[in-house]
Amino acid sequence: MNVPAVSELAPPTRLLLGPGPSMVHPRVLRAMATPLLGHLDPRFLELMTEVQAQLRAVFRTENPFTIAVSGTGSAGMEAALVNLLEPGDAAIVVAAGVFGNRMADIVGRCGARAVKLEVPWGQVCDPARIEEALAREGKVKLVAIVHAETSTGAEQPIAGLGELCHRRGALLVVDTVTSLGGVPVEVDAWEADAVYSGTQKCLSCPPGLSPLTLSPRALEAVKARRTKVQSWYLDVGLVADYWAEGKRVYHHTAPISMIYALRESLRLVLEEGLEARFARHRRHSAALVAGLAALGCTPQAQEGHRLSSLSCVRAPAGVDEGAVRRALLADHDIEIGGGLGPLAGRVWRIGLMGESARQENVLAVLAAIEQALAKQGKAPRPGAAVSAALEAYAKT
Amino acid sequence: MNVPAVSELAPPTRLLLGPGPSMVHPRVLRAMATPLLGHLDPRFLELMTEVQAQLRAVFRTENPFTIAVSGTGSAGMEAALVNLLEPGDAAIVVAAGVFGNRMADIVGRCGARAVKLEVPWGQVCDPARIEEALAREGKVKLVAIVHAETSTGAEQPIAGLGELCHRRGALLVVDTVTSLGGVPVEVDAWEADAVYSGTQKCLSCPPGLSPLTLSPRALEAVKARRTKVQSWYLDVGLVADYWAEGKRVYHHTAPISMIYALRESLRLVLEEGLEARFARHRRHSAALVAGLAALGCTPQAQEGHRLSSLSCVRAPAGVDEGAVRRALLADHDIEIGGGLGPLAGRVWRIGLMGESARQENVLAVLAAIEQALAKQGKAPRPGAAVSAALEAYAKT
Repeated sequence: MNVPAVSELAPPTRLLLGPGPSMVHPRVLRAMATPLLGHLDPRFLELMTEVQAQLRAVFRTENPFTIAVSGTGSAGMEAALVNLLEPGDAAIVVAAGVFGNRMADIVGRCGARAVKLEVPWGQVCDPARIEEALAREGKVKLVAIVHAETSTGAEQPIAGLGELCHRRGALLVVDTVTSLGGVPVEVDAWEADAVYSGTQKCLSCPPGLSPLTLSPRALEAVKARRTKVQSWYLDVGLVADYWAEGKRVYHHTAPISMIYALRESLRLVLEEGLEARFARHRRHSAALVAGLAALGCTPQAQEGHRLSSLSCVRAPAGVDEGAVRRALLADHDIEIGGGLGPLAGRVWRIGLMGESARQENVLAVLAAIEQALAKQGKAPRPGAAVSAALEAYAKT
Repeated sequence: MNVPAVSELAPPTRLLLGPGPSMVHPRVLRAMATPLLGHLDPRFLELMTEVQAQLRAVFRTENPFTIAVSGTGSAGMEAALVNLLEPGDAAIVVAAGVFGNRMADIVGRCGARAVKLEVPWGQVCDPARIEEALAREGKVKLVAIVHAETSTGAEQPIAGLGELCHRRGALLVVDTVTSLGGVPVEVDAWEADAVYSGTQKCLSCPPGLSPLTLSPRALEAVKARRTKVQSWYLDVGLVADYWAEGKRVYHHTAPISMIYALRESLRLVLEEGLEARFARHRRHSAALVAGLAALGCTPQAQEGHRLSSLSCVRAPAGVDEGAVRRALLADHDIEIGGGLGPLAGRVWRIGLMGESARQENVLAVLAAIEQALAKQGKAPRPGAAVSAALEAYAKT
C-alpha cells in the first residue's frame, strides 16, 4: 500500500462570507484545541448541562429537551422528522427553496406522505395556505417550515403558526439553521414543537453539531409512537437519556471538542446579548444590500421578508457570476456562495453571519465584487458600492 | 430569559485510558484550531482527497468509496447498514457484546430481519457458525460482525469471512471502531464490503467522524436498491457525489475542523507506520496485562483473542470497582472505563489506543489502581504491578 504524501496543514486564510461556515472567533478556535475530557467525565457532563442552558437562552425556550445533535444541521432536520413521523403519517411541508424540499424528501423516507406547499423561490408562504391545507388534509402529524431559507435569503414569518397547527392537532417543525443567533428565533412564543439549527452560521462555531429543542408536546408524540424510530443514531429517546441530568446513560461518544466550541460560541453570543446581535446583523445587512444595489444587484427575496443574516441577490444582467466568485477567492481570499437549484448561475449568496457581520467585511466584499465586475466591464464608477454602503451606515 | 452564568472553559487535564476518546497529539489539537475554509473551497476539496487517500492506506484498501461520515462511530455503523439493507432483507449479526447487539438493533430499524448469533461476552464467533447460518437461512443480504468488541476486549478473527459470505451471495460488514490504526485491519485482504471506524480510538483524533469504506460490490448493492435509503443524511449515493473527485456536489456542510484533525492524525499514523504502530500497541498491552495480573485481574476476553488496543479485565473479587475508578479520576486525573450491560460493576476497560499507548501511561495507571486497591485492603505489596509490567517490557 502506498503511503500518500500529505504535507503540513496550511490552508489559505479566507474571509468567509458565503452561506456558512462563517468566521470563527479566536476564543472558539482555542476551545477547539482544548485537550479532551471523556464523554462520561463528571466535568464534561457539567459542560453539557451548561450548553443546554445556553441553548435554551438562545432558542428562547424553557424546553427541558434542548440538546446538540452529533451531526451538522441536516442531521438536526432528520432528527426532528424521523422522531415525530411514522409510516402512514401526513406532513405538510412548505417548499420555498432547497431546504424545504429537503424536508419533504426526508418525510418521504420516513414512509410518511409529504403534502408540499410550493412557493416561488424567494417568496414566503401565506399562513392562510397552511390553514387551508390543514383543513383539507384531515389528520396531519406536523407542519414543517423553514424560518430562514438559505437558498433564497427569505425570512418566513413564524409567529402564530404554532397556535394554528395545534388547533388542528398538528405539530410545528421549524428550521432555523440560518437564523439562530442572528435573527430573532422565539421557540416558546412561536409555540414551535421541534426547532433545529446548525452551529456554523450565526453562532459562528465550526460545523459539526445541530442544536435541537423539542417541546413537551413533541416528546409526547415521540412517546406515543407505535414503531421504533428508524434511526438509532438520532433516536431522541435514547439520546435524551445521555443528555438528561441524573441519567447520563452512554449512547454514543459525543463530539467533545465540538461541544467545547459550541459552549464558547454561545458564551460570545450571550455576552453580546441577543438583541444587540440581531441589531448588528440588521445594520450590516442594510449596508451590504445598499452597496449591492449600487452594483445593479437586486435581492431574490421578496420585500419585507429579507434575511439579515444572508443576502441572496441576482447578479447583474450579462455578468458571469461564477467568474466573479472565482476572482473574489483568487484575488481577495473572499468566499461568497453561488445559487442552488433553479438559482444556480443567477444569484450570489452573501452571508454576514455571527463574526462575519462586521463593517470591514461589508466594505471588503463590495470593493472586491466591484473590481471583479470591472474586469467584465460591468462596474459603475470605482467606489460606488462602498459609498452606498457608507451612506446606509450613516443613517443608522 | 435568564442568561446562564458560564465560566471560562478550563477542564481538568485527564489521562484518557478508557475505551475512547484517547489522548490527542498536540499537532492534532492545533489542526482543530486552524481557521476554517468553506466546505466547497477548492483547497478544502483537495484536503478531502488527501484524507481519502490516507484512509485507504490505513484501511488497507483500494476502494474508491472511502470517506469520513459526518458523525461518530455509531453513525458509521448506521450508514453501513441503512444503505445496504432494505425492508424484508435478512442479516446475520454476530452478537458478542454491546456493539454487535447495536448492529442487530439497527438491522431491525431498517425493517430487515436480524438473525443473531449470540456469543458469550468475551468469546469470539467460530466461522463455522456463520457458515451454518448462511446455509440455513437461504437468501441473506449481509453478515455483520464486530472486529474489536469495545465492550469485552475481544478481537474477532475476520480473515476468510469475506470469501465465505460471497460464496453464499452475502456481503460482509465489519466494525473496526476500536481497531483501525492500532490493530491490523485488512479491508481488501478480508474481502470486506463495508467497514467503518471511529476517530477517537486508535487514530487518536477527537470524536466526530466515522471513516467508512465500501467495496464495489457494496456499491452495486446500493445501486440495486428498490427503495430509497431511509436516512437522507447518511445516504451514500448522495454523500458520494460530494466526496467524488470531479463531482463535489453540495450535500451537507462537512465538519471542516474535524476533517483537518483527521488529516493530521492520519499523517501521524502513517509517519509512524502501521506495522510499528501495531507492534507498539501489542508491547504496551502485554505490559499492562502483566501488571493487572499481578493485581489479581484476569482478562474477560478469551485467550488468544485479546485486543491490544483495549483490555477488559475482571476486577478482583470483593473489590468495589466503581470506587477504584472514582479514585483514579479524583486522585490521579486518570480515566478508565467500567463495564457495560452484563459486565457493569464487574470489569474495567483500559484503553491504550494511539497516543495513549505509552510506557509512562501503563506505569501510571497500574500504580494508581494498586493504590486505589490498597484503600480497600485489596492490594499486593507496593510496586507489584509496576514490577510485573517492567518484567514484561524487559522481554520485548
